[in-house]
Amino acid sequence: MRTPRELYFSLDEYQVRLDALRSRMEGKGIDVLLIHTPENLYYISGYQTPGYYWYQTLIVPIDAEPIFITRSVEESNVEGLTWVEDSRPYTDNDDFIARTAEALTALNVDHKRIGLEHDSWFFTPRDFLRLTAMLPNATIKDCSGLVEQGRMIKSPQELEYIRMAAHTADAAMAAGIKATKAGANENEIAAAVHTAQILAGSEYTGLPLFITAGERADLAHATWYRKTVQNNAVMFFELVGCIHRYHASLFRAVYVGEPPDQVIRAAEVGMETLQLAKDFIKPGVRCGDVHELIQDNISNKLGINKSPVRAGYSIGIAFAPDWGEGQIISFYMDDPRILEPGMTFHLIPAVKIPEHGVFTTSDTIVVNDSGCETLTDFPRKLYVQ
Amino acid sequence: MRTPRELYFSLDEYQVRLDALRSRMEGKGIDVLLIHTPENLYYISGYQTPGYYWYQTLIVPIDAEPIFITRSVEESNVEGLTWVEDSRPYTDNDDFIARTAEALTALNVDHKRIGLEHDSWFFTPRDFLRLTAMLPNATIKDCSGLVEQGRMIKSPQELEYIRMAAHTADAAMAAGIKATKAGANENEIAAAVHTAQILAGSEYTGLPLFITAGERADLAHATWYRKTVQNNAVMFFELVGCIHRYHASLFRAVYVGEPPDQVIRAAEVGMETLQLAKDFIKPGVRCGDVHELIQDNISNKLGINKSPVRAGYSIGIAFAPDWGEGQIISFYMDDPRILEPGMTFHLIPAVKIPEHGVFTTSDTIVVNDSGCETLTDFPRKLYVQ
Repeated sequence: MRTPRELYFSLDEYQVRLDALRSRMEGKGIDVLLIHTPENLYYISGYQTPGYYWYQTLIVPIDAEPIFITRSVEESNVEGLTWVEDSRPYTDNDDFIARTAEALTALNVDHKRIGLEHDSWFFTPRDFLRLTAMLPNATIKDCSGLVEQGRMIKSPQELEYIRMAAHTADAAMAAGIKATKAGANENEIAAAVHTAQILAGSEYTGLPLFITAGERADLAHATWYRKTVQNNAVMFFELVGCIHRYHASLFRAVYVGEPPDQVIRAAEVGMETLQLAKDFIKPGVRCGDVHELIQDNISNKLGINKSPVRAGYSIGIAFAPDWGEGQIISFYMDDPRILEPGMTFHLIPAVKIPEHGVFTTSDTIVVNDSGCETLTDFPRKLYVQ
Repeated sequence: MRTPRELYFSLDEYQVRLDALRSRMEGKGIDVLLIHTPENLYYISGYQTPGYYWYQTLIVPIDAEPIFITRSVEESNVEGLTWVEDSRPYTDNDDFIARTAEALTALNVDHKRIGLEHDSWFFTPRDFLRLTAMLPNATIKDCSGLVEQGRMIKSPQELEYIRMAAHTADAAMAAGIKATKAGANENEIAAAVHTAQILAGSEYTGLPLFITAGERADLAHATWYRKTVQNNAVMFFELVGCIHRYHASLFRAVYVGEPPDQVIRAAEVGMETLQLAKDFIKPGVRCGDVHELIQDNISNKLGINKSPVRAGYSIGIAFAPDWGEGQIISFYMDDPRILEPGMTFHLIPAVKIPEHGVFTTSDTIVVNDSGCETLTDFPRKLYVQ
């Protein structure tokens, strides 16, 4: 491994990640893995760019040096940010799928067992069909999730970055709540939130910050849209921060005006449920049971239908369009997977009150040896302005 | 068509878009089209959410009402933002591909000619393989680009939003240049830029704003990373604004300190090339000839190798991870496509000087009846702080 100009994890840590991946590749029975998912590329090599709207892959043979194939203008990021020595960029008019197939042929694996990430967004059906057609003698295996298995448990250095990210998300939340008042424009509040988050050190995030006033909070994942904050309405914040691509996020809600009893009760149940879940989470617990606990409590206490929506998701490395990594592990209904120390989640007891909006209080947590620790550290209450 | 709560294009305009799409579907010989690309969903229906990290599709039969399939929490956006009346959301634990196949069977098209977007990021190889396996009697056609053909020429209302977006990008640039000085932190500059852009009205954008100091400007698509601006170094800005998902963008560079002759010359050649290209662009011109003009001039005047990188790309509707729509039309080497009035481009005579950074001056333009009009309106020069 080569030391690049910028290195945010030790080469030793990258070696551990790569060795563990190769061991999983062996278990899966493949000779080479093609990584197309931006988060996985970053995890294994340190490579990052927002320019993944062009094709890119890291070819990881089980017993030879990895090869990067990127757009030529992105080669600077292979050189400057990764330990990978073999970089084979393509030019804009080039056939990058043909270049990928050639690299596999040169490695003498075109007739062997090749792992692909069938669930990767940035390896399209067209790419898949072309590449597999160029490799008629290969055995193609779906290796979705193989790199992600290594991302599930965070290392001390990864946790440190998530802690730092949580601090920037907390700073953003403080600014948002302070800026909220009747008559303010959503964009004024959004500007204050971005300023605080970026000055606290955050990078760009995998999703926009969700900052929504009044009736637009009914629209899922709506965010600032030049609307004016009205009296007697909710101001909704789902914020995030990012350090070295590691994210932490939290929800808080502000009521502008005198909150009705229904809103106070919804917020109370949300906070109580969040605490119940934190008390429940520890190594050995089933993910589905966390879902059950959360959705049951909200349903019972508020007399509403039990929600089938997941009650939290793994959080860590992210590139747009997601800040979570819920495809790795989430609190789904009936999910049989078991919690382990070092897993990080955005824990979301979502409480939506029709006509009033969303009154969720959420946190980013890490499972530790005996329970869990809350990483976002912003007072939990129904804010009133 | 139903009038939703929020409507930013007239129902007449949506009807025109839908009719034109169906006419192209007929030309392509398909009975139904499944749209999976977020920009295309927005263009045809008005639907938008950052939540496209979950599966979603709009099924457009050639002779029946369209059907939306989204995650249940996103149904609010079908109801609130679109004219589509038939919404069939799935719950988090549900098999959304099976729901899609069922909808096609209920439409009685499961044995007919079905168009898919093979180049869509948010329709993965896994989704593709599962869906086509569930439709053994269908004839599957790759209809990538079919919706995009309608997006290539902008309507007056689309152009109005791009003009507004350009105004917000200009405001961001003014703030960035003003905040640049030796000793400033990139994040302070980024905070000022975001504040100005959002206060000018911008929404979240399809890519982060690119704000990079000094040697990190050598890393393609790098952006703010808590670094301090040094003396005798470049500060690089590639900024964008967004109104109703329509984008406009521009590059400017600032030299901090006394610029060396090489930098002054590079910036001059960049600006001269931008003007040459604007004078050249008009209806009937080949895209490849715009590339040639730009890359030839830069190469000849600066005595550097001619770049094969595209010299501009179409710009309009965008969701992460891109703010352009270069897959629709770009200024590629040898590209035979012909310019028409109403096309919009981010025109990029990129000038990169090794060891010094990137000194590009770029603009967003619209092709009009006799030439082109510049939409971003920020003074073109090498800024010195």
